[in-house]
Amino acid sequence: MSLLDLENVKTVAVIGGGTIGASWSAWFLAQGFTVRCSDPSSAARDAAPGLVAACWPQLSALGASGSAQEALARFSIWESHLQAVEGADYVQENAPERLELKQRLLSEIDAALPADRVIGSSTSGLKASDMQTGMTHPERLVVAHPFNPPHLIPLVEIVGGKQTSEEAADWAVAFFNAHGKRAIQVRREVPGHIANRLQAALWKEAAYLVQSGVASVEDVDLAISEGPGLRWAIMGPHLTFHLGGGTGGMAHFYDHLVPAMQTWWADLGTPTMDAALREQLVDGVTQEVGDRSIADLAAERDRKLIDILNVLSPAAKRS
Amino acid sequence: MSLLDLENVKTVAVIGGGTIGASWSAWFLAQGFTVRCSDPSSAARDAAPGLVAACWPQLSALGASGSAQEALARFSIWESHLQAVEGADYVQENAPERLELKQRLLSEIDAALPADRVIGSSTSGLKASDMQTGMTHPERLVVAHPFNPPHLIPLVEIVGGKQTSEEAADWAVAFFNAHGKRAIQVRREVPGHIANRLQAALWKEAAYLVQSGVASVEDVDLAISEGPGLRWAIMGPHLTFHLGGGTGGMAHFYDHLVPAMQTWWADLGTPTMDAALREQLVDGVTQEVGDRSIADLAAERDRKLIDILNVLSPAAKRS
Repeated sequence: MSLLDLENVKTVAVIGGGTIGASWSAWFLAQGFTVRCSDPSSAARDAAPGLVAACWPQLSALGASGSAQEALARFSIWESHLQAVEGADYVQENAPERLELKQRLLSEIDAALPADRVIGSSTSGLKASDMQTGMTHPERLVVAHPFNPPHLIPLVEIVGGKQTSEEAADWAVAFFNAHGKRAIQVRREVPGHIANRLQAALWKEAAYLVQSGVASVEDVDLAISEGPGLRWAIMGPHLTFHLGGGTGGMAHFYDHLVPAMQTWWADLGTPTMDAALREQLVDGVTQEVGDRSIADLAAERDRKLIDILNVLSPAAKRS
Repeated sequence: MSLLDLENVKTVAVIGGGTIGASWSAWFLAQGFTVRCSDPSSAARDAAPGLVAACWPQLSALGASGSAQEALARFSIWESHLQAVEGADYVQENAPERLELKQRLLSEIDAALPADRVIGSSTSGLKASDMQTGMTHPERLVVAHPFNPPHLIPLVEIVGGKQTSEEAADWAVAFFNAHGKRAIQVRREVPGHIANRLQAALWKEAAYLVQSGVASVEDVDLAISEGPGLRWAIMGPHLTFHLGGGTGGMAHFYDHLVPAMQTWWADLGTPTMDAALREQLVDGVTQEVGDRSIADLAAERDRKLIDILNVLSPAAKRS
């Protein structure tokens, strides 16, 4: 069965109205979609419009048109996921990370939704292969994993399960890219998809360097944010090393610099995740942040993210 | 012996006039110093002023005052390192990465330079402990490792050797920070200092994901540059996860998210560095870059770096 044409997507269902669901909702609203959100908790339903509205000034700064009020006129919040998916052309599922719960929700949504609609799950820890087992149309389920905060970070990782059709994965990549996200295709289900694995690899050594007394928490952080982190906002690790190879590019890098790289690999460490390291990291971060609260830091990160996104790519291109 | 007061540093000697030496020279000139550079190769000496001048428009974009011509009036290039260090208040050594060569140069510079002057080496692969063995005043030698390109990237890693005094390491950190760099203190000599180890840890998994068919070179790159890379330009890995812990910060992160992290660690891979991977990486990068040459990519990176540095911190603060 062929899938809905991209240009016919008008309404998006967002399952779960917490932080991630609200952030996704705000982003879909900024793309002009009608958003039908659901959450079984009445407290969450009461809070959701406020969470969406709170994202709006940031989306405006990235080029979204209209006011938060105009956007919220296209937003509705429902108790049941089955109400939310009524008339939906795409579903973004953000339920808690419990397999049985997701299996049940996805089967019910699957039964209610025309078979030409794709369903994406925000899961970071579960596999589409496991989530799709109870579906009549498992071929339309993909993992569509965002990066926090979803309304600002362009990356979406698309991963299919064993029963997912290539067509559905391609559709999801094309859908997100058509609206300014940068969707990538993960070709095999592996724990952590791609970006979380890469983050985990980096943090493993970052924690080890603190534990083994090589540098303070703050200095390890600065070693990234004042160094390679600035380059990684522009180019990924392979392209960075292609440049690191000079005029010979990646081939030169591979032949001449991989030996040094391997010496470093051999010396990388594995931290012992004990109470002492916990204390070291908590103390170090506390010292690093000074009197900035988590809310201050989040606001600072988001403001700088928007500034960086705007200088890297004109706002007009991202809205 | 106490070291020269920071405010009395007027003249900097830069040993080596290649890409790194010229980039350092341009940065020191932008801070208002007189720069005495040396290179034993006459071709390198002929090329050096042009390399310095090529950095100038970028430094101007970051707030450096005056023209390239005015800056070059404070720049001189010499055949011998002993000529370059005459009257120098700080020395930045960028000779080829050969231990015996560096030992000889550093001993000779040490003998010629008043003992209250600090000497920094740009080495990425050698230890201060090994380089300082022939010096009469080994206590003033530090590694002062920049990040490419040195005139743009703020990070400088300061590492002392066994005989380096704490005072010299502190002096170097204070010196660079006083002039707009972000210098960090590496407390123990380890291969790759800090940033290169972290880069190596990330690239190890990035190469593994390509080799094991999880994603294309380009998609692995986008997984960073459109995701965590954008955040790492703002905050390092520890601070990022402090935010990832929500209102509970690093303590919550440690207690609740480290288990998932450890699952990912257990699944991280080690690529086999064979000819097939070389080909896969070269082909993947070739496809990713399209018709952009290395020079195009470097210009693109530098332009975006300058834009990011300017939005993260007003130009006035960095000049």
